Amino acid sequence: MSDTETLPRGGLYPASDYLDQLASIIRAQDSYGHWDGKTDADLLAEYILTPEERREIPIISDPEPETIARIEKFYDAVGLLVEKRTGVMAGQMAKFHHEGFGRVVLIGGSLVLISKHMRDVHRFGFATYAKLAEAGEKLTADAVKKIETYPEAARD
Amino acid sequence: MSDTETLPRGGLYPASDYLDQLASIIRAQDSYGHWDGKTDADLLAEYILTPEERREIPIISDPEPETIARIEKFYDAVGLLVEKRTGVMAGQMAKFHHEGFGRVVLIGGSLVLISKHMRDVHRFGFATYAKLAEAGEKLTADAVKKIETYPEAARD
Repeated sequence: MSDTETLPRGGLYPASDYLDQLASIIRAQDSYGHWDGKTDADLLAEYILTPEERREIPIISDPEPETIARIEKFYDAVGLLVEKRTGVMAGQMAKFHHEGFGRVVLIGGSLVLISKHMRDVHRFGFATYAKLAEAGEKLTADAVKKIETYPEAARD
Repeated sequence: MSDTETLPRGGLYPASDYLDQLASIIRAQDSYGHWDGKTDADLLAEYILTPEERREIPIISDPEPETIARIEKFYDAVGLLVEKRTGVMAGQMAKFHHEGFGRVVLIGGSLVLISKHMRDVHRFGFATYAKLAEAGEKLTADAVKKIETYPEAARD
């Protein structure tokens, strides 16, 4: 039995700048305050995909618009956190094909901060909040490092 | 009466590396040699849009897949010509929204060589072959200049 099975779905919710940023993006969509009583963990529950849930998702259909929106917000949060840490405005551009393949780039100035080819877009999700935080923080760190390597291009 | 009205549709076909590149991309799609008898001007006729034709195109519907393919090939040709001139592999990523808005980026290594926001995607076209050549050559020159400015990022 793995650790996560003895804990609530998604496991413990860690302190993370990335999770804070992602939760605030989702909260910003709640114009009428319906989610005021919800915790950040509640709002980010849509990013959790347990191994059992993952197995149940068919990968033959086109990805749902909600899935695509979820991926775009995931990278929006990386972009905003990169901007907070470097001052470089970073915006994502995502393109998805019908078969569940896709590509996301995060661009700051004239620099490509992140370029990811994705497959199984249908199954975008993380077993735990800790893994979600880790993935977001790693992408952010990679992007910041790229800006430090090519500061002029990032500010062009 | 403008000059072009006294000439065939699209006007004179100029010598241009860009037009050669674009025509060869279109010719490469002709697996069975059906177009062997066609001139490059015939193949590129789809890029010509006279002022009269432009006025007749409605801009309220979603852009046709053929329109999007045409724009993608236009930038593919820029990418291939950039590669010939610099050795940097350059690939486009295009995203179109329903309302006729879109964005195209041309990426070489970690460098954004071109970033264009487009509107009236439905009306993508050029009054003459000379203007088509000029547009492609200008984008190519801009991209080459970007690579010369940030050579390390372009080769990352």
